[in-house]
Formats: sequence, C-alpha cells, structure tokens
Amino acid sequence: MKVYGDSISGNCLKVKWTAELLGRPFEWIETDITKGESRTSAFLAINPAGQVPTVVFDDGRTLAQSNAIMLHLAEGSALIPADAYDRARMLEWMFWEQYSHEPYVAVARFKVVYEGLPVADLEPRLIERSHAAFVRLETGLADRPYLVGDHLSLADVALVAYTRVAHEAGFDLAQYPRVKTWVTRVEEALGL
Amino acid sequence: MKVYGDSISGNCLKVKWTAELLGRPFEWIETDITKGESRTSAFLAINPAGQVPTVVFDDGRTLAQSNAIMLHLAEGSALIPADAYDRARMLEWMFWEQYSHEPYVAVARFKVVYEGLPVADLEPRLIERSHAAFVRLETGLADRPYLVGDHLSLADVALVAYTRVAHEAGFDLAQYPRVKTWVTRVEEALGL
Repeated sequence: MKVYGDSISGNCLKVKWTAELLGRPFEWIETDITKGESRTSAFLAINPAGQVPTVVFDDGRTLAQSNAIMLHLAEGSALIPADAYDRARMLEWMFWEQYSHEPYVAVARFKVVYEGLPVADLEPRLIERSHAAFVRLETGLADRPYLVGDHLSLADVALVAYTRVAHEAGFDLAQYPRVKTWVTRVEEALGL
Repeated sequence: MKVYGDSISGNCLKVKWTAELLGRPFEWIETDITKGESRTSAFLAINPAGQVPTVVFDDGRTLAQSNAIMLHLAEGSALIPADAYDRARMLEWMFWEQYSHEPYVAVARFKVVYEGLPVADLEPRLIERSHAAFVRLETGLADRPYLVGDHLSLADVALVAYTRVAHEAGFDLAQYPRVKTWVTRVEEALGL
C-alpha cells in the first residue's frame, strides 16, 4: 500500500508507526502540506477532503482519517483490545484525541514550529485547552501503564503522536509526571 | 443504561437515536450544558472530560464520546457494515465528522441558536469550513443513497445530527441537493 503523508504531521506518523508495529510493508509518499501538496487536483482525486494521511491500497481503494486507517490496519491484532468494553474505551480516547487534544496541542505546535509564532503569542484558548487535555491524560493514566488496560493499544499510539512533541510549543510535561513517563514507555514500544 | 445528554446537542441525540434503532432500553438524564451541568463535581466523577453524552451501564462502567458509544452499542448489528473496507469507510466518515464537520456546523448553530449571535456576525472561517463540509458530503453521496454502501450505517446517523439542523445557522442546503435528499432519507429511517 501507499501512504501519502507529511513527516511533520503526527497524524501521518500514527499510520506509519501502526504499519511498522504490524510489520505491514508500505511505500511512504511524502506530501508537503505547507506547499499545498494535499490540495492539488491529483491529490483531491484520491481524497476529496484534501487531507493527509491518505492510504491507497494495492487494489486502488483509498482510505483517509488517521484513526480510521489505524483501526483498519490493526483489525484482529493485539493493538485492539479483545474485550468489547476495553475496545470501546480505546475508541473513546481516539475520538477524544481528534476533538479535544489534536485541535489544540497540534495546532499550537504547528503555529510555533512551522509558522514561526512566538510561544508568548499563542492564543490563550489554545494553551488552556492543551493543558486541559494533558490533565485529562494524567487522570486517565492514574492507575495504569497504558490508556486502556495493561497493554499498548491504538489509543496510546494516537495520543502520543502530538503529546511527545508538545514541548516544541512550549508545554512542559514535567507538570504531568504520569504523562511524561507514559510518553517514554510508548516511545520505547514504538522504537522511537 | 443511563444516557446523560443535552437534548439540544446533536452529539447526544446520536446516542439516543442509535439506542432506539437497536431497541435498546435506556434512561435519558437531561444534562443542561448551558447551565454547566456537565462540569459539576458529580458529573466529572462520571466523565473527567466533562462532556456529554456519557453513558453509565448497569454495571456502573462508563463510556463517553458520542461516536465511541454508538460503535459500542451497535457492535454486531446491521448499523455497522460486515465488510472490513466498508467498516473502515464508516469510521473515516465518523472521525471526519468530529474533526471537519461538527467543529464548524455545530459550533455555528450553537452560536446562533443558543448564544443569540446574528448569522451575519458568524466568523467567516466557521461559514467557509461548514460549506466545505457540505461539499464533501455532496461528493460522498454522488453515487449512493447512504454514505457507505447501500444501507444506513452509523456514519449516516453521526453526520445527519448537525446537518439536519444546519439551516438554524443560516445554511441553505438547497445548494447541496444530494445532501438534502439524504437528510430526508436518514430522518425517515430514524423516525424523525
């Protein structure tokens, strides 16, 4: 399969890491979002939403949305809990990630690292909501090594993507010791 | 099970509709987000993220995130396609809904209907992104009656929630005839 992705995007790296964990071969096609490469007519023919990551399978069928791709690739693997409730909690974290974590933590990082905005000029709302997301993660890790049960799941892969680079937007994870330890644990599992 | 939800929230109604489609009994506990009822210490003990909908099952376990709840309730039902690729496309739509549709369409509606903002004063970005979402839906419905395959799936239930009330924020779906027809089709399936 081909993975269209931008290496600066945690959403894209999630798919790469999941494929690597599963030992699934893929061709990475670097797609520079800052140069509009996900908005060309050729790319829009693959994904009308104009977003990376997008996967093209060997039969030509396509799939977008990082978390949907991960769930599809990992079906039947140990990255998805066998228990129905644990599986639902994993999905809860993954939808929360896209709604309540990525739009703040990833956006803050993008503005600082790729648009050159000084950390001091970040909108207060981005900073507040990012901290709220870290607090939520810290609570979720209170009594367990991974977000769901005792094993690495797609929830960890999804949430670590932007949490591990949050410091690039000026966030100090030392305030969230369980999150900090968990990032290291997940990075080790991912071979990062 | 108990469903904590606010009747003005499409995210909460998604869970109600899914439970009704499945014939699954539930107790609805009205939780007024505009009065901060999802931020009380009692509520935060149920869901530390302070968001509705949140479900409490009979055994006391909890689950949040509308789309995660729907996926859990509907496991093994006809609302989730049996084919792996169709299932992945359904998930693609559901993640896209939370990232690229709800944050614009639902937020615009909330500002107009519940905060009293005149339509003319909506941020241009909310309007542009909402129209981009409708265009994406129109494209997705070009050659099929439902978003995935020939049958109603959770993707339709999730996407119809705020699309059907988009007119309350001043959007005219007449520009998107396939979307308009699809809304009616899904509403009929939901008995609305």
